[in-house]
Amino acid sequence: MNPVKATETTGHGDISTAVAGGDSNASATRITPGNALRPEDNAQEARTGSARPGADVAEYALRLGDDALILAQRLSHWISRAPELEEDVALGNIALDQLGHARSFLSYAGGGLGGDNGPKSEDELAYFRREHEFRSAHLFEQPNGDFAVTIARQLVVSYYQFELYRRLAASTDATLAAIAAKAVKEVDYHRDHSAQWVLRLAGGTDESRHRIIHALKLMWPYVGELFADDALTTTLAEAGVAVQPSSLREDFDRLMGEILTAAELEVPDVPQAPGGGRRGLHSEHLGYILAEMQVLAREHPGANW
Amino acid sequence: MNPVKATETTGHGDISTAVAGGDSNASATRITPGNALRPEDNAQEARTGSARPGADVAEYALRLGDDALILAQRLSHWISRAPELEEDVALGNIALDQLGHARSFLSYAGGGLGGDNGPKSEDELAYFRREHEFRSAHLFEQPNGDFAVTIARQLVVSYYQFELYRRLAASTDATLAAIAAKAVKEVDYHRDHSAQWVLRLAGGTDESRHRIIHALKLMWPYVGELFADDALTTTLAEAGVAVQPSSLREDFDRLMGEILTAAELEVPDVPQAPGGGRRGLHSEHLGYILAEMQVLAREHPGANW
Repeated sequence: MNPVKATETTGHGDISTAVAGGDSNASATRITPGNALRPEDNAQEARTGSARPGADVAEYALRLGDDALILAQRLSHWISRAPELEEDVALGNIALDQLGHARSFLSYAGGGLGGDNGPKSEDELAYFRREHEFRSAHLFEQPNGDFAVTIARQLVVSYYQFELYRRLAASTDATLAAIAAKAVKEVDYHRDHSAQWVLRLAGGTDESRHRIIHALKLMWPYVGELFADDALTTTLAEAGVAVQPSSLREDFDRLMGEILTAAELEVPDVPQAPGGGRRGLHSEHLGYILAEMQVLAREHPGANW
Repeated sequence: MNPVKATETTGHGDISTAVAGGDSNASATRITPGNALRPEDNAQEARTGSARPGADVAEYALRLGDDALILAQRLSHWISRAPELEEDVALGNIALDQLGHARSFLSYAGGGLGGDNGPKSEDELAYFRREHEFRSAHLFEQPNGDFAVTIARQLVVSYYQFELYRRLAASTDATLAAIAAKAVKEVDYHRDHSAQWVLRLAGGTDESRHRIIHALKLMWPYVGELFADDALTTTLAEAGVAVQPSSLREDFDRLMGEILTAAELEVPDVPQAPGGGRRGLHSEHLGYILAEMQVLAREHPGANW
């Protein structure tokens, strides 16, 4: 199932040279204008050693990449399953944006992981890690639920990611800064998409208003984890590489307050879940996501036809 | 599961006016540069009666829309299931392009269907028709198989659609012409994507070459149906509205011959399947596709929250 690949970075096989002029990037269907930095660009630099991150930076990039990867898996389930074609397309586009961001972060992270076995590829990181090796926050693995639940998750995610990427674009790490600078443009659309839907659901019928209120209550226990600092973020923030999560909270709360007020909704008053995703402690949901995501790749481990 | 919708065209409920300034188009995540004509544009014209197609034209648009819709369902299965993140993104983008084309054609078709019950929406056509009411050709419902099979299907589809849309852009029907003119730009990317992969698979390893040869043999029985004329296409082609399918065959064969020659492959010599998709006769595969696609919408028939 694993096709030959011109952009192979892991060194097993070099089929690409057998195809004259085979530059997969020239022909790939890359149609998102604000497309994030291509992982191939990272990989190229990583091979020359110019942009290979240290272990701390790699771990930080892994967190951001896993957040985006797991969300993309969740959102992609709406494609061909939503009861409206228009929303199929919108959520599908958001899923592909997140997948693009995930590829960039994971590819960069891979350059600093793998120890003596050399750098790990984005595919190795996505398909051949086990559950406790994933670093995504719990919010991202929450089930899609009904449409309102997916929108509530999107609201929190997009407002969080927007503040994060906006600041990370000024990182002293040039690769992280470049990824974030491109990603923030797409996340700005996602933010607008979720905000418009929250307004519409809250201002629609009694039923739609009831559902979005319930959905926000379901998601809110997982907000706190997004803004929790730890030793890694503290060290990297002091070096100007990472953004300290707690530093995002004030702007997040203010802007979230504005949209909720406009929708005549209140910030849910619910206890916070314990979190632990950054240390590899996950809810039962992640296992199911990984099982589906990884099954094909694992059936053909390392196989390039 | 059916969220409130600002662009509702079927008249049950008008929640959109309850939300001040709720223009879903302003906020939707539309990030494909060559995005096909928005169905909302069709719907707007259809409401004013200026672009409501006759029954023949509606039936023709239904064929093109169903082809794209069923292909989009098939391709979307690769998202989150492909063993490579890069190809996840590429096939996902192609799926969303096809879904966009499907929405445009189906929305236009819906304006000429429904009889006394008024026009049908794109969602009604996608989610509430039965198997024998679908007009897609058999090629589009063929299973994904392995990656080579999906690429072989894409090769035939994209070369066919490119020739079709290129000519349909000159249709005397302004709406069909506008949809085709935008769609052909995206299909040009799809054509390049599949051609590059065929070259790479054919010129790669013995295994990849074997697989693409086998895949082309699997798909070829369904090529003939794409170019079969019938009374509808003959009538509409004489009026300058439709493209007579058989008129595409010469250019298709020539260009397909060029890419196969470049890949040192031969046109498969296999018997043609009987077809019948344009008359609603389908293989067993379509039923499964529809079951998955329609289940959520049918659980909440007509429900706007």
